Amino acid sequence: MSSLHTQLNWRYATKKFDPTRSVPAEKVERIVEAVRLTASSSGLQPYQLLVVTNPALREAIKPHAWNQAQITDCSHLLVFAAWDNYTTERINTMFDLVNEERGFSNEGWEAYRQKLLNAYPPRDAETNYQHAARQAYIGLGTALIAAAEEEVDSTPMEGFDPAKVDEILKLRERGLRSVILLPLGYRASEGDWLVNLKKVRTPRSQFVIELK
Amino acid sequence: MSSLHTQLNWRYATKKFDPTRSVPAEKVERIVEAVRLTASSSGLQPYQLLVVTNPALREAIKPHAWNQAQITDCSHLLVFAAWDNYTTERINTMFDLVNEERGFSNEGWEAYRQKLLNAYPPRDAETNYQHAARQAYIGLGTALIAAAEEEVDSTPMEGFDPAKVDEILKLRERGLRSVILLPLGYRASEGDWLVNLKKVRTPRSQFVIELK
Repeated sequence: MSSLHTQLNWRYATKKFDPTRSVPAEKVERIVEAVRLTASSSGLQPYQLLVVTNPALREAIKPHAWNQAQITDCSHLLVFAAWDNYTTERINTMFDLVNEERGFSNEGWEAYRQKLLNAYPPRDAETNYQHAARQAYIGLGTALIAAAEEEVDSTPMEGFDPAKVDEILKLRERGLRSVILLPLGYRASEGDWLVNLKKVRTPRSQFVIELK
Repeated sequence: MSSLHTQLNWRYATKKFDPTRSVPAEKVERIVEAVRLTASSSGLQPYQLLVVTNPALREAIKPHAWNQAQITDCSHLLVFAAWDNYTTERINTMFDLVNEERGFSNEGWEAYRQKLLNAYPPRDAETNYQHAARQAYIGLGTALIAAAEEEVDSTPMEGFDPAKVDEILKLRERGLRSVILLPLGYRASEGDWLVNLKKVRTPRSQFVIELK
């Protein structure tokens, strides 16, 4: 599947996965890699991506996600989990990595590090988490395209109890909070009410505002 | 440029645009269309995309965006502007459009409409705006890829004063609030400190958590 528009038209929020089919590991790896490569604010990548295949964990999550069958019928459950806060250590780790990889530091970059260190850690954790969570949505937008490129179906899900998912996956101990679930698998067309329905989007005239 | 990973590796947050080059209208159109086609929570698409080419408006925005030259040196400034609130009217408009386009309604879909009508409009406007703003980041993730596919450079920007941009673009009158700026144009490699530096990302081992 080559063009981006073709991929975006092909994908849909899959309602029923075929539980007998598993996404090959190399496809999952390319989807994950696309998320790793995309942009984030100041390049901090303030979230991690969990790849949950464990059946017991997925069974435990399901009742806290409106009992949606995709959680257990998919082959890989991606969980986007944002940093619970921006700390001095987290910011320094990323800036140090950049210096190490590039083999040098420079004044502008170090001034920018100080700007973030002065701005983010003193803010309340909730504000920082909300900012980090937004970045995870850039990753989600990327993952939807990456999955479609691999002809892998996916279902973006906000409909779950984050506190319960955090508990089941022990995310708070890692300084993370669950933001979005994204089951990956293959559509079971015969049991999916949405698969054959037309994709509807706001008309261009109501979506775009041109200021010339 | 064909593969998604190639596109994601090619793109970077452009620091200097060539002010003499303009992105062809058909390329801008394909980028905008990709954003229009991507996913959003419940398919509500709770944001609009502004395409600002007007020089005076961009000059007016620039001082409220750290005087970043990309605002005026780019050829098209995209502004992602989220709904300031979820209202009954906005939700009904989208559900009615879906029914109209599909030529029928169904019980499950109508029950879902009621669920959203009961949940969203009674919440405070700020909570609803924050939820809508997250959806705009899915659009941003999409736009970054769409631009790279067109070999168009872009710079995602959160560093601006949203209240001022809202005022300059008269967004509040439209029930919108600015979330992200995305200048589109062509890199001026000779004046861009970042263009030749290595892209650095968190290593896979620290980005991905596998729960098997």
